[in-house]
Order: sequence, then C-alpha cells, then structure tokens
Amino acid sequence: MKAISILGSTGSIGCNTLKVVEHLGNIRVVAMAAGRNMPKFAEQIARVKPELVSCDDEGCAEILEKELHRLGSPVPRIELNSKGLIAVATHPEAETVVSATVGAVGFLPTLRAIESGKRIALANKETLVMAGELMTAAAVKSGAEILPVDSEHNAIHQCLRGESRKEVKRLILTASGGPFRTNTKLEIENATREEALNHPNWKMGDKITIDSATLMNKGLEVIEARWLFGFDADQISVIVHPQSLVHSMVEMVDGSIIAQLGVADMKHAIQYALTYPNRQPNCQEPLDLRTMSELSFEEPDLNRFPCLDLAYKALSSGGTMPTVLNAANEIAVQAFLDGKIRLNEIAKVNQAVMTDHKPEPVASLETVLAADEWARSRAIMKLGKTASAN
Amino acid sequence: MKAISILGSTGSIGCNTLKVVEHLGNIRVVAMAAGRNMPKFAEQIARVKPELVSCDDEGCAEILEKELHRLGSPVPRIELNSKGLIAVATHPEAETVVSATVGAVGFLPTLRAIESGKRIALANKETLVMAGELMTAAAVKSGAEILPVDSEHNAIHQCLRGESRKEVKRLILTASGGPFRTNTKLEIENATREEALNHPNWKMGDKITIDSATLMNKGLEVIEARWLFGFDADQISVIVHPQSLVHSMVEMVDGSIIAQLGVADMKHAIQYALTYPNRQPNCQEPLDLRTMSELSFEEPDLNRFPCLDLAYKALSSGGTMPTVLNAANEIAVQAFLDGKIRLNEIAKVNQAVMTDHKPEPVASLETVLAADEWARSRAIMKLGKTASAN
Repeated sequence: MKAISILGSTGSIGCNTLKVVEHLGNIRVVAMAAGRNMPKFAEQIARVKPELVSCDDEGCAEILEKELHRLGSPVPRIELNSKGLIAVATHPEAETVVSATVGAVGFLPTLRAIESGKRIALANKETLVMAGELMTAAAVKSGAEILPVDSEHNAIHQCLRGESRKEVKRLILTASGGPFRTNTKLEIENATREEALNHPNWKMGDKITIDSATLMNKGLEVIEARWLFGFDADQISVIVHPQSLVHSMVEMVDGSIIAQLGVADMKHAIQYALTYPNRQPNCQEPLDLRTMSELSFEEPDLNRFPCLDLAYKALSSGGTMPTVLNAANEIAVQAFLDGKIRLNEIAKVNQAVMTDHKPEPVASLETVLAADEWARSRAIMKLGKTASAN
Repeated sequence: MKAISILGSTGSIGCNTLKVVEHLGNIRVVAMAAGRNMPKFAEQIARVKPELVSCDDEGCAEILEKELHRLGSPVPRIELNSKGLIAVATHPEAETVVSATVGAVGFLPTLRAIESGKRIALANKETLVMAGELMTAAAVKSGAEILPVDSEHNAIHQCLRGESRKEVKRLILTASGGPFRTNTKLEIENATREEALNHPNWKMGDKITIDSATLMNKGLEVIEARWLFGFDADQISVIVHPQSLVHSMVEMVDGSIIAQLGVADMKHAIQYALTYPNRQPNCQEPLDLRTMSELSFEEPDLNRFPCLDLAYKALSSGGTMPTVLNAANEIAVQAFLDGKIRLNEIAKVNQAVMTDHKPEPVASLETVLAADEWARSRAIMKLGKTASAN
C-alpha cells in the first residue's frame, strides 16, 4: 500500500485528494497539514487516521483536540506551523507528497520534500513560479519526480508520455479566456468584483479566479511549464479555448499535435499524479464526446490581457523577475478584491514593480524570499499611488 | 542510411512516400513495384535509382525499358507480377516495406515481408481486413512491426505511445461522415455517382471515396484497428467529426482522452511510419489552431449508414466473415461506380452475401482466398438479382 502526505488537506485540492484516495482504496494517508479550518480538519483526521498532523498554532491545536474528542477519534501526533508543515512534507513513510497549500507557505516544505527525493504531486503554483530554478535543481539532485496537479500541466505531462523532449516543437497551454474573453478593454477596466469572480468553467478560490480573469493565471502557468518541462519561453504558447475540454496540447517537430481531453474535474489530475505511471479507473462520469459540439480556439489578446505578456517578459528577464511578478500580483489582486483598484490596474501595478526590479540569479532560498518581500512592499507603495490617482 | 522498398509506387501513397523520402534525405529506396503506369514509374526509377523494380507483365517491362532509355536512366533488375512484388517486398536490404498497392494484390507480398521480419508501413487496407488474424500471427512470430499509414490508425498509434494497452478503455476512430453526413436516407438512396465521389475533406481513389460515402471505409478501419492494436470490437468506437482535424483518439481507463490532430495530409503518417520511434521535422505547413474554430463530434447513424453496422457484425461473427464483407463490398462498389446499382444497395448486397456465409476460422491463406472468391461470385449473383429488381 502506497503512503502519501498532504499539505493543505482542507482546501479544494486537499478535499479532492481525499476523495481520490477513498476511491482508489490502495493509498494510506500518513500525514496531513491544514491551516485554521479545524472542524473540517478534525472530521478528515477521524476518517483518514493519519499518524501525524500539523496546524497553524497552539490555539488551532487545542480546538483540533477538542473536535477529535467530540468525534471519538484518537488524537494523532500534532506539530505546529512551518515546523509542522515540514514534518508532514518529509514524513519518512510518505512516498508522495501532495503539495496543495495556497501561497508562499508551501514553499519551504515542498522544497524539503523534493530534497528528500519524494514524488511531489504539485498543486502549489507559487513553488515553481517563485523559485522554479531552485526546485528543479533540487529535484535533479535528489531524483524527486514533480507531477503537476492542475489540468493544463497534467495534460502536457500526459501528452509527453512516450515522446522524446528534443522532438517537441512547442507546448500549447489552453486557456478558457475567463469571464472577459469577449469584452472590450473599457468593459474589462470597469468590471466589478462579482463579474471578475464569475468564472465560466471552473469553481476555484478567489485569487486564482481573478488571475483567470486577467489571464495572469495562464502567465503563471507558462512560467510553471518552463520549469516543469524544461522548455524555453518561445516553446510555450497559449491558446484560448473557451470550452475547457482540451486541457492542453503538445506540437511535435513533425507537425503532429497530441492533445489531452477530459471533464473539468481536478480529481482526474490528482489521481493521475498519485497512480502514475499507471492509470486506474476513475470515479467521474466519462467525457461525452457528443457534448463537444463546438470546440473553438483563438489567439489570446495581449492588448486586453497584458498580464499574460508580463509573464513572458518576466521569464525572458529571468532570475528573480518571475518571483517579483508573482508577489506584486498577489498584492494587486488582493487590492482589487478589497475594492481598492480596478481590474486593469492589476497589470499596471505588476508592470511598475517589474520596471523597478533588477533581477538577480536565483542562487538560494534567501534570494527568492528577499525578492518576494521587496516586490510586495514595492507593490503596496505603487498601490498607494494608484489608489490616490483614482 | 535506412533502406526501404515500396509496393505500389505510382499510386497516391507511393508518390507521397517518395516525396517524404526526398524530404528526409536519409532513406534509400532499394526496390519498387508498380502496376501498369510505366511512364510515371520510369520517371520515378530515373530519380530514385532502385536496385530492383517490378511491374505487371512483359509488355509493361518493355515499355518501362524504353521509357528509361528515353530518360537516359540505367535500367535496374526488372521482375514481373506477383513474383516481382514478392521480390520487392522481401528485398534483403530493405528494413521497411511500404505496402501501398490497392486491393488483394498486395496481400501475399505483404505477408512475405512480415514473415521476413521487416517493418511494414501499411497502407493496404485489404491485408488486415481480409486476413488480420493470419498477418498479426505472422508478425508476432517474426517480430515484424506493422505501422499504419492512414491518418486514423496512425493517430491511434501515436496516442498509444507510452501507454499500457491494459489501461486503454477504448479506441475512438474519427470519421468525416462523408458527403452525405447531413442527408436523409432517401437522399442517400438517390445519390448520383458524382455526389458520392465528392468527398468533403480528402482527395482519394474512387473505391475508397465511395466507401467513405457509405461509412464502409470506417467499418473496414474498425476491423483493421482490431488487428493492428489487439482490442475487441466493443473497445473500438467511431465518432463523426466533420472537420477531420482530430485524426483519432484513445480513451484511457481513468477517463483521460488522448487525441492526435494535424493537417489532412498523408505525408504525415508516411513519415511517422518511416522514422518511428523518432520524429523528424516535416515538410508541410503546420496546423493553424486558429482555423479550428468549430470542431464538432456526433454519433454515427447506423440506420442511414448500415455498412458501418455490417463491419461490427462481421467482426463479431469472426473467422472469414470480414474477408467476405470486404470482397462483397468491392464488387458492390464497382457495380455502383458502373451505374448498375444505387448507393444504398451496396449495403444490401453486402448483407445478403454475409447472410449466406458460414464463417470458418482463418487457418491459412487458402481459407482466406477461397472465402474472398466465394464472396465475389456470390455478390455478382446478388447484383444480378438487385439489378433485375430495379
């Protein structure tokens, strides 16, 4: 029986991972970490019975113990905060670590898991966007395998099976185009929070939903793809495909295009990452090809969606520039969600911070964290200016 | 430098093979066979300079020699008829044999090439439809690899790269639907020869174009797929995809669908079969994804296109039944092309001959050829009845 640990078990990927584990029936969860949602975490622990768990702080741990007693569940070993996350990520029995925390918190534990040579089922975008160079170098050194748990990169991984990397012409990431695919620049500028949060195909968290509306999400995925698959930016392209059924494609040097299609359900990619190189029967309804009555594809419009362009620029600048873009964007998106700036100003803040940044080589974790911190404070400064100009 | 031989060099696949060979620049054609088009064959021989050639009879050989003298080309060794075809198919230097003759004539030479352990780039449909069991058993014995040179099976071959056969749920062959995809049963019944020959996407020979109009072609491909890939009929399905850009798909047990897309150009599959397991840059324009503005998929209608249903029935009857269907269909299609029967009567003739046939196990080449001959004369008999009933 395969053993895994989960970072971020109460989030959307974490919950779906547990569903996949239950469906597969041949995987044991030995360690789990969650942040602050203790009632849900307790319920998961009572069901899954891991050996080790981790939560944010002592207050959380107290609530967790109470909830577990209430449920009549044995209390596992509890560790706290980043030390706890790292303990979960490096649990000696876990062969695979599902890295599904949101934001920079998952960064160090994921690096430690990679260093321990474990397979990483990676849903934490920031890990590769902030420090792809560092992470992939560590994976090469330890022999750790990084398997992407998002539909696009997972699709690319599937399309590359049995193919030689040097025979790949380009990766083609599909993008739904988000809620503003057909809107004018002016309409996008004046979009409300509610309009921006209304994603046509996927139900996700607020941050990533806004990133989908600006196509920043696709830009971050281009950066991830660069590190996951080792291709240069000019070999990674994006095509808008509003139906989100073709999850991504690979074009080979002989003109052949291999595509992966499926239902829009994260459980597929999670299961793939857990069972690879094998495939096992899934628990979702199959994709009904007859529902594919009108698949379409169009070029992304970098004029209306400048964030995608910024991601390519960050990649070509290299070094800490992608880290800086990612950090500035987190601040700008939060400002938009808080009603402080307009949707089009996210790209403006990102660009302004990038313009001020002199990228450095990603030599160490410290370089990355320093660039991240610098970009956040710089973005907050830019926000002050943007807000006062409104 | 790789050496190949070509059966059927003056046909459409043969000519495209020579274009691919010229483009690749690292393949030598050591032997070529053609039927009766000697001016074209002479021009090919003068360019390619094979060591051995074969044509239909002494009259053809005389014309060929004259043409070669006229072109100032050296005259290679010339062999005749089926002996010549077999000599080309088993030429000791050829590692790969492109089997691209039309009809039953390619049957025995292809079997001999398989028995010699050569890679077969297979464009001759009849080989697998008539005697798939025999051919695949011979391939297993000799270690010969059969690589399909038609867009659908070639696509399936590509989708299966890196996948485990036992994790495949089903193969999904795409069908353009032919010129009568949207017509009523009555309209199809009254279709003219010209309407039936007007294929929307592919330029092919008359026989296969009519087979595309009745979906018999897709039925024969289902039978081929059964032998090429070793899946049962219930794991091979057909979906109508009028744009012919998705060349075929494979659905895996985990719900993932892998598809191969490309331009509608036979050179792609030919090159793939010649270079496999490698891929080399091609000489065609790449597929412009932005032209894929409306890909659609629909179930085939077995009521309007009964020939597809007959192919599944022939497969499930097994033994010589597919041989019989193929033979009856050749006679019926020719009768339609000669203006003797209506389009819908092709299926009626096929079905009538199948009803009269008691399938036998495909034990030997003799069994196959006897079933083929029986079905042809039976079909001619049925035609007499059908024609007199008109």
